Amino acid sequence: MPTYTAPAKDMQFVLHDLLKISVSDVPGYADLDRGFTGAILDEAGKLANEVLAPLNAIGDQQGCVLENGVVRTPDGFKAAFEQLKEGGWNGLDLPEDYGGQNLPYVMGTAVGEMMVSANMAFNMYQGLTHGAISAILAAGTDEQKAKWLPKMVSMDWTGTMNLTEPHAGTDLGMIRTKAEPQDDGSYRISGQKIFISAGEHDMAENIVHLVLAKAPGGGEGTKGISLFIVPKFLVNEDGSLGARNGVTCGKIEEKMGIHGNATCVMNYDEATGWLLGDLHKGMKHMFVMMNEARVGVGLQGYAQAEAAYQNAVAYAKDRLQGRAVTGAENPAGPADPLIVHPDIRRNLMDQKSFVEGARAFTFWGAMLIDRAHRLGDKEAEGLISLMTPVIKGFQTDKGFDMAVQAQQIYGGHGYIEEWGMSQFARDARIAMIYEGANGVQALDLVGRKLASDGGKHVMAFFEMVKAECKAHEGDDRMKGFVEPLKAASKQLQQAGMFFMQSGMKNPNAALSGSYDFMHLMGHVCLGLMWTRMAKAAFEALEAGASDAAFYETKIATGRYYMARHLPACAMHLARIESGAETVMALEEEAF
Amino acid sequence: MPTYTAPAKDMQFVLHDLLKISVSDVPGYADLDRGFTGAILDEAGKLANEVLAPLNAIGDQQGCVLENGVVRTPDGFKAAFEQLKEGGWNGLDLPEDYGGQNLPYVMGTAVGEMMVSANMAFNMYQGLTHGAISAILAAGTDEQKAKWLPKMVSMDWTGTMNLTEPHAGTDLGMIRTKAEPQDDGSYRISGQKIFISAGEHDMAENIVHLVLAKAPGGGEGTKGISLFIVPKFLVNEDGSLGARNGVTCGKIEEKMGIHGNATCVMNYDEATGWLLGDLHKGMKHMFVMMNEARVGVGLQGYAQAEAAYQNAVAYAKDRLQGRAVTGAENPAGPADPLIVHPDIRRNLMDQKSFVEGARAFTFWGAMLIDRAHRLGDKEAEGLISLMTPVIKGFQTDKGFDMAVQAQQIYGGHGYIEEWGMSQFARDARIAMIYEGANGVQALDLVGRKLASDGGKHVMAFFEMVKAECKAHEGDDRMKGFVEPLKAASKQLQQAGMFFMQSGMKNPNAALSGSYDFMHLMGHVCLGLMWTRMAKAAFEALEAGASDAAFYETKIATGRYYMARHLPACAMHLARIESGAETVMALEEEAF
Repeated sequence: MPTYTAPAKDMQFVLHDLLKISVSDVPGYADLDRGFTGAILDEAGKLANEVLAPLNAIGDQQGCVLENGVVRTPDGFKAAFEQLKEGGWNGLDLPEDYGGQNLPYVMGTAVGEMMVSANMAFNMYQGLTHGAISAILAAGTDEQKAKWLPKMVSMDWTGTMNLTEPHAGTDLGMIRTKAEPQDDGSYRISGQKIFISAGEHDMAENIVHLVLAKAPGGGEGTKGISLFIVPKFLVNEDGSLGARNGVTCGKIEEKMGIHGNATCVMNYDEATGWLLGDLHKGMKHMFVMMNEARVGVGLQGYAQAEAAYQNAVAYAKDRLQGRAVTGAENPAGPADPLIVHPDIRRNLMDQKSFVEGARAFTFWGAMLIDRAHRLGDKEAEGLISLMTPVIKGFQTDKGFDMAVQAQQIYGGHGYIEEWGMSQFARDARIAMIYEGANGVQALDLVGRKLASDGGKHVMAFFEMVKAECKAHEGDDRMKGFVEPLKAASKQLQQAGMFFMQSGMKNPNAALSGSYDFMHLMGHVCLGLMWTRMAKAAFEALEAGASDAAFYETKIATGRYYMARHLPACAMHLARIESGAETVMALEEEAF
Repeated sequence: MPTYTAPAKDMQFVLHDLLKISVSDVPGYADLDRGFTGAILDEAGKLANEVLAPLNAIGDQQGCVLENGVVRTPDGFKAAFEQLKEGGWNGLDLPEDYGGQNLPYVMGTAVGEMMVSANMAFNMYQGLTHGAISAILAAGTDEQKAKWLPKMVSMDWTGTMNLTEPHAGTDLGMIRTKAEPQDDGSYRISGQKIFISAGEHDMAENIVHLVLAKAPGGGEGTKGISLFIVPKFLVNEDGSLGARNGVTCGKIEEKMGIHGNATCVMNYDEATGWLLGDLHKGMKHMFVMMNEARVGVGLQGYAQAEAAYQNAVAYAKDRLQGRAVTGAENPAGPADPLIVHPDIRRNLMDQKSFVEGARAFTFWGAMLIDRAHRLGDKEAEGLISLMTPVIKGFQTDKGFDMAVQAQQIYGGHGYIEEWGMSQFARDARIAMIYEGANGVQALDLVGRKLASDGGKHVMAFFEMVKAECKAHEGDDRMKGFVEPLKAASKQLQQAGMFFMQSGMKNPNAALSGSYDFMHLMGHVCLGLMWTRMAKAAFEALEAGASDAAFYETKIATGRYYMARHLPACAMHLARIESGAETVMALEEEAF
């Protein structure tokens, strides 16, 4: 059975050595010294290691069961949920006004990684609640906030997001769920939503659904969509629960993974709902939730890879098979451990260097979100908006690949469910799909984000990479970082130029390369992170850090990333520059 | 629910336009004219489409059940197995002496692809039997052949291969199963084998296990291993079944996929067995089976991708979502079909161009096997020995990736088991692991095959590619093929040179790049196949082929492969040339 140990030390490295959060000008960051963040991470780690991780396989095996309209979660989930509530973990980075602790988002991200690595399906109940809270915070009236948020922050009530319908996934303009205005200001919501994570379960008193629906007068397509609050139980004036609302779970889906989370078909039958935010502006408000959710899903990508990696390492050290080509390393034993073999090392280093790079990228992204929200930093807001599809699309693709590679270390045992490595791959797979399939992320990046604000944000990113390279000029220790980063960044710029030049004539030329561009950009971002982490590690060593081996390992891991992952950039560029011709050559019938 | 339509026309193209089998000098090939092969493929296609494919999802859902030592296969499997037997499909390419039809292996391969695409788990019962027959044909005495083969060719009895033990997978030298010689010339076999596909089931009267075990006097490691025939039921002199032998299925594994095939723990408790081939030469004899099995597994890789691709295409044409960026293509409908979007095309073309290239490569490999067996062609034997790890390792990695990409086309529905796309990915996953995990294939390729016979076979392959490029010099139509192939082949040679130069000093330098080399070589092989297919298509068009669109599609699909897959070669070379330093940098504790 797999185990998990929260990587608090690696997180501290990112928070303090790399991002230097406690000396940042972001309000609230000054409190985040090493001791304080260490205490939080230790507490969260305990919960993740001891409570959530042991339930991960149980959740996978038992799944959720729908009986008489009630969803039963796997054994132990409810008790663990109570512990999560008692610890106040959901409110960690939410406003004090509603019962939260108002810590920065970057801390919520670090804690979130632990919970997701330990038990992704379980964590989704909390993750969706957090997203729904963000939408109400951004779009709700004071009255709505007072009514819904305290119980959601405490997780007495959980939240969901209801977008997809059977015929309308990416293309939300086609949704049919209707909202009929009533005399009392409420709406009657009717329609069917599918793929609703945590749509029904037995761990909370109430569930607050945020539902996209069409109210009269909004016109065609996405313009006609509004967002509604539709609770499972109506809430009385005094805050107590009232009548059951007209919303029921009609079915839960049998899925490839995340079995511990109930993926529901939700039927709305004249359910009572209240408009959240402006009429016919539902898409805008939903995107508050979606953007947060996309960063969270990008985190799921590498967090699953982290958990899988830890177990792959343990197996590679334990399993004796074959002899090192350079001479036996365990001569007293019947064979050497797998980890002596170069191809096993190659596999593990692929994983390790990706996961640590992705963690840095994600925490950095979380810091940008804090800068945007707490400082009103418009540049940070533009940058995280640009990076969101990369965090989501690149990291979930690679995270799945790495979970599959971790499974491969186990040989035949990796394919047997009892050993638990299949679950990491199966669970990680969903992250490439939900909250906008990765092809949609690539479209968002190339079709929208690159050009937003006149291309200002991507230019700022290029400048940032350039400045980073310049800063290390003449530093021989940094050569193995700066040179590959410079080359990769040039390739990314060249791809951008190709889009500008050929995309003018033929938009298909740009969109045929969108997926490769997303990956190319992901590599440049992780390359930038590794360059900065290496520098930070050299600084720590120079300052006489007691744990020299830790910092030396960071540098060596970064060198691997630059030498072995960044060569993908040239491949992506070549694919991009081949343009639309071969992609669009066939008639539809020829497929 | 997914469907499958056997691609007989594409197979005919490979057999006749590309490989020109009916004019080959291989004994038996002259009979294989278009009409004859078409008739076989049509019959096999009917069985695959109408009988096997509809059972695929059922097999996945029901799995196999072990009750009182008996394994119950899923509903419908036994009846389908009877149809397979009645059609004589197992004996298609087996000797007439034992009831087969003695057709060339290339035909068995084409038919096999259909069966595997339709239902991989079901087909394994037959596939293992075929492999066991090959081992008995190669190593058995005349008496053994007469005793075992007729019933195995007819599939009244099925076969298995028993290698792995709990502590010994890749490293078979560590097996503990014992064989005690008896006075009557038989052996008593005792020990435990795991991961035995089709080890026990209810579709055949008897099961003939081929078992690796250690007989006294053989010394340490693999040198002490012999191969034994151990039937489930002993066989009387008159051919009737006798007493139950001391072999039982102790457990069937819960796996990620191929649920329809029983993966068994087999317990041998003083079971009666007979030596197959020479004492202490079991590994050599088992490798007859293994090499055939590896080509068969490489076929599974792309055959699963083919089935997944067919369904992805159907969904992409059917599902309406969004509008083409160049203007609505289905203006009367609420949205355009997915297939109008460039990134969907990119995804589908990735799949299509890989699958068709892999089919050509595999059939070509099967033709080499026929040349080796039927003509005694030593060069063909050397070449297929070199190619076997590439067929197995590269094609199963890519086949899985492509099944995952096909699943991605379905968005959220791809993750729901009901839609069947998850099964293709889960089933395809095992092919990367069994019959030697892909890392072991890479080791076999770089550590053994490259240098075998003084490197003669890889040099012959380079010459073959060079000659192919030279043959099209000055043919402008072929430029999009020849130039990328030439570049990729140079990169492959450069990687080989790197291994020779640096591997002398440090074997880890070569082995750190083995996995990338396997992929680089796979791309060159498929690039070569596409170059030849394009040429064949141009020739057909020049000859006034009636179905011009079919041949034009081949050329366009090949162009995609060259433009969009071959750029991976430079990436693999760069990874290889970065050497062992970053791969082996960390101490074991640093992971």
